[in-house]
Amino acid sequence: MKEEKQTKNKISELRQDLVTGDWVVIATGRSKRPEEFAKQKREVVQEDPEKPCFFCYPEETGQEEDVLIYQDENKNWSLRVFPNKYPAFNRSRTPGHFEEGPYFGMDGIGYHEVIVTRDHKEQIAEMDVMRVAEIVDAYQERYLDLMNKKSVNYIEIFHNHGKEAGASIAHPHSQLMAIPVISPYVASELNGAEMYYKSNKKCVYCTMIEWEAEHKKRVIFENDDFIVFCPFASRASFETWVIPKKHKPYFERISPDEKTHLAEALQSAVGKIWKALGDPAYNFYIHTSPCDGKDYSHFHWHIEILPRTSVWAGFELSTGIEISTIEPEEAAEYLKQI
Amino acid sequence: MKEEKQTKNKISELRQDLVTGDWVVIATGRSKRPEEFAKQKREVVQEDPEKPCFFCYPEETGQEEDVLIYQDENKNWSLRVFPNKYPAFNRSRTPGHFEEGPYFGMDGIGYHEVIVTRDHKEQIAEMDVMRVAEIVDAYQERYLDLMNKKSVNYIEIFHNHGKEAGASIAHPHSQLMAIPVISPYVASELNGAEMYYKSNKKCVYCTMIEWEAEHKKRVIFENDDFIVFCPFASRASFETWVIPKKHKPYFERISPDEKTHLAEALQSAVGKIWKALGDPAYNFYIHTSPCDGKDYSHFHWHIEILPRTSVWAGFELSTGIEISTIEPEEAAEYLKQI
Repeated sequence: MKEEKQTKNKISELRQDLVTGDWVVIATGRSKRPEEFAKQKREVVQEDPEKPCFFCYPEETGQEEDVLIYQDENKNWSLRVFPNKYPAFNRSRTPGHFEEGPYFGMDGIGYHEVIVTRDHKEQIAEMDVMRVAEIVDAYQERYLDLMNKKSVNYIEIFHNHGKEAGASIAHPHSQLMAIPVISPYVASELNGAEMYYKSNKKCVYCTMIEWEAEHKKRVIFENDDFIVFCPFASRASFETWVIPKKHKPYFERISPDEKTHLAEALQSAVGKIWKALGDPAYNFYIHTSPCDGKDYSHFHWHIEILPRTSVWAGFELSTGIEISTIEPEEAAEYLKQI
Repeated sequence: MKEEKQTKNKISELRQDLVTGDWVVIATGRSKRPEEFAKQKREVVQEDPEKPCFFCYPEETGQEEDVLIYQDENKNWSLRVFPNKYPAFNRSRTPGHFEEGPYFGMDGIGYHEVIVTRDHKEQIAEMDVMRVAEIVDAYQERYLDLMNKKSVNYIEIFHNHGKEAGASIAHPHSQLMAIPVISPYVASELNGAEMYYKSNKKCVYCTMIEWEAEHKKRVIFENDDFIVFCPFASRASFETWVIPKKHKPYFERISPDEKTHLAEALQSAVGKIWKALGDPAYNFYIHTSPCDGKDYSHFHWHIEILPRTSVWAGFELSTGIEISTIEPEEAAEYLKQI
């Protein structure tokens, strides 16, 4: 039936996310050819050339003290992690709740850190694998340190690249937020994975991986531990996932070997997107099991990479249904060839 | 307890959406003063001055035929509705489903229309109320025509203003998409309203309206039929809702009197945001009950207006938790004074 569809050009599709049950639209009638996406150049984040970069000179620019630093025997640092100067979540208070009539809220207690690599310009797409592995090391090390803190129930690790992706500082960096609540998107994946497991006695992500690895039409990279593919129900054009091939619920339990393979897979995915789309703005983030002490053995951690090739408009904001203008199969074909 | 909180400056808050149970972050530590938001000027949508505007000259620029036109006895049109030239949903085919291994999808069957007012520049913020009432009339008229079509289960009506809000054509217009699925955001509100009704024997929106009308600290406008306020758990800075004061599940059943009052409330809300933030990009959309024939008597239709004062970054994309940098109480205070 799929074959028949492909001859019917320019008809949009609704595809259902196998995990959450949510829908996305693939509207190729509005489509550009894959190479046309590259024209949407990443806007450069504004910098004041008179001022020293916050992330090149953390001490001199008044950043808080490092919580982690990787440096050689001569004290040359290659990566450092310190608290965000303008945190969305704040440390060091006992969490309070408040009510206002029918409403309920709580203090935004948690940790908000930045993970900074040394070079002011070198992006993940350009790094050698060992440097990316160092970033993955830092993600894991900070995760393990924060996961047992009081009031931390979920740790969100993400990377914004480019102004349209929300990066306000040009110097490459990732961020970590350790927060007291499970977010709706993660909750929806956890719930979907659990429901699928109950119905099928199988992990929904493992099901996808098996299908993708066998059919290969959306796979763009593979090594011993990880597979990289454009998901069937992509939320955005050129959306790409990096996911462990074996069933692994917890990112923080990643082994040294797996870390190197993750670095290779992530670098390859980001590098292909970088080349294919001409340095686009993008975000990636890790979705993993909460650290609230409950059992999430049915979940399967992964990284989602979302290039920012379009602007969310009223339809997306209203519905949560995203419209993507290229089929993931075509996007994958294009990325694979890079 | 709320009083005590207000003295603790710069601590962010997590606020729970009373309907969906989802969380938002109010991170005033990163905040600007209300008037500073105005600096983020709306980017003007690019236009080719050599070419006639698609929406000023629909016939000459090859748009499809009108499905609705409002004109005077001299055939001077003031509003017209025609199919979107690049529809995200397509008409005139029998809906098909398809499977691919574990995945499921369906054809993107539906209707995608644009609702265009005559003047190339005049925005809703600048219109007189009767002109806005005409737009509301068109929304209702198109809704009533499409709601019983085969395969239409939800009708999404929305308005994008400015490039960062996804408007690709500068000429003011709204859009309508009549689609076969209930979207995740709407489903989440429907579900939340139903759960709340089951627990409290009361509509959750009516509960909010009562509280807001009594305490007034987030209310920016009111007339006989509608109240306009910044919601307690705002998803974005200066988010504003326009909602019928009485319990009304179905937008399409709006009476002529209510339509005039809706036009007044919407014009006032959009006008205040326009003046306060200096013509920002924004989206608004109607959330109403699905037209799938089921009973949604517990739901309460409303309009949500979302100014685009910030960019969704990795955290928001990953979690669905939005970070807003001004308290809705402060935003409302500022808008009220306009």
